[in-house]
Amino acid sequence: MSQSTALRTVGFIGLGTMGREMAQNLMKAGIALRVFDVRREAVTELAALGAHAARSAADAAQGADVAITMLPNTPDVEAVVLGDVGLLAHPPTGRLIIDMSTIAPAAERRMHALCAAQHIDFVDAPVSGGPLGAKNATLTIMAGGTVQAFERALPFFEAMGTTVTHVGASGAGQTVKLCNQLICGINIQAICEALALGRASGVDLKHLREVLMGGSAASWMMDKLGPAMIDGDASAGFRIDLMLKDLRLVQEQSHTLNVPLPASALVTNQYLDAVAHGEGRNGNQALFRVYDRMTGHSVS
Amino acid sequence: MSQSTALRTVGFIGLGTMGREMAQNLMKAGIALRVFDVRREAVTELAALGAHAARSAADAAQGADVAITMLPNTPDVEAVVLGDVGLLAHPPTGRLIIDMSTIAPAAERRMHALCAAQHIDFVDAPVSGGPLGAKNATLTIMAGGTVQAFERALPFFEAMGTTVTHVGASGAGQTVKLCNQLICGINIQAICEALALGRASGVDLKHLREVLMGGSAASWMMDKLGPAMIDGDASAGFRIDLMLKDLRLVQEQSHTLNVPLPASALVTNQYLDAVAHGEGRNGNQALFRVYDRMTGHSVS
Repeated sequence: MSQSTALRTVGFIGLGTMGREMAQNLMKAGIALRVFDVRREAVTELAALGAHAARSAADAAQGADVAITMLPNTPDVEAVVLGDVGLLAHPPTGRLIIDMSTIAPAAERRMHALCAAQHIDFVDAPVSGGPLGAKNATLTIMAGGTVQAFERALPFFEAMGTTVTHVGASGAGQTVKLCNQLICGINIQAICEALALGRASGVDLKHLREVLMGGSAASWMMDKLGPAMIDGDASAGFRIDLMLKDLRLVQEQSHTLNVPLPASALVTNQYLDAVAHGEGRNGNQALFRVYDRMTGHSVS
Repeated sequence: MSQSTALRTVGFIGLGTMGREMAQNLMKAGIALRVFDVRREAVTELAALGAHAARSAADAAQGADVAITMLPNTPDVEAVVLGDVGLLAHPPTGRLIIDMSTIAPAAERRMHALCAAQHIDFVDAPVSGGPLGAKNATLTIMAGGTVQAFERALPFFEAMGTTVTHVGASGAGQTVKLCNQLICGINIQAICEALALGRASGVDLKHLREVLMGGSAASWMMDKLGPAMIDGDASAGFRIDLMLKDLRLVQEQSHTLNVPLPASALVTNQYLDAVAHGEGRNGNQALFRVYDRMTGHSVS
């Protein structure tokens, strides 16, 4: 392994629910951190734990082996990478940028091409596993980019996740993440419809779920979210509005590539309905409450 | 246990792909069989194995402890149970009827009520597990009816399946089966859309499936049907046209109970599309071929 992959300094940009945990895991692995976020208090929090408080994304990247971004959406990443005082104009010393946000695959490919022209390695590496996976360094990381760039990024990934896979060329990480999200959304919808039909038919829902988990209808989502859906517990877990953001990216990709994704489109609409009814900050299991309304059931 | 639950004689009506295997497992358990099917050759086959060849459903029930029906659809079961020479007019000596077909829950409740008025126990007990489960006596059996009727039926179920659950009152077995089927259909659709998006984006599909199986998108369907979908192997497994029949029953139930099931409706349409394109006798994984056509991909 070349000298450049030794764990030294990371510029970390984006200290939200996920980013702040991932940054801390890098520090726990003995990596020096230069952190930046538009919210000053987020920077202060990490600085108190030993990170260097940078004044900008470019400042975070200065002298770093790699710059890692963990931001809400496509325009945020583009602003940080392509902006006048961004990472393309002011790259990290190690000339490696890793975007771990969930954004449009096409945007990753554009940034990858622009970086390649400047001899900067660029990897898209969205994650799954949620806030708990971020905290426990058990994230699943799906990376797209060249083999060389992936190998340089790997030691940093290993400080944040347990399942790290190089899934293909630039943008492939985001594509796999979007495939994951569309399946999750559709599988949740499937459970909603089964529970709605079972309830209207007078079947005990806990019993129903138990029988379904034993056979061909079983899924990770039914295992993990089924109980909360049945209990009407809307509070915990991955948020409805963040899933909607990901499903919008799926729709964008569907239109860009001319691939009809009818169930994804339908489920996106169900999520819009949920957000319109104030469920945005609830967990994905709250999608079932759309049915409570549809069918005149009282919503707790 | 009362004398009436001792395993003696079953009248078995409906010797199709499933029924012929289930009947043979009853015989293997030491139960005497009186069999009937509208196809004479199906009766002859079982008679060669030691079953009594009955001339009608009523004849199969004559002197039997229980009559079991395993028929294609609602009208078939209604004809056998409610017809002039049917089981209601000519009940088995043990006054117990078990319908193991997958049909409309409302029809089961009607037959249950008519039987109850004649002091005949009636149990709806659809199965999952397919032809292989039927052959190996490893079916999942979901039963609806009174506790007393279920307990009388249980010894017979145990000769045909491994997971036997009393899920509620009359019709509940069918409701749980329909919930199972709608989830299966929707989960298959989810996999189709992920594979279509992944392929159009240039991601390796085997790699994609492997990564997705490791996380929140995992499902029984992706585990079992994913590989055949990716390989374009449309041949084996549960048939598209039989799934469409079950999804039609889901739609019927949706309309009867005024429960909106939008993704189920959409998936039913995809199955109609598949059947219209000649995929009816292929396995459920052939639903992916609908996308091959939509997106102009060549179909093998």
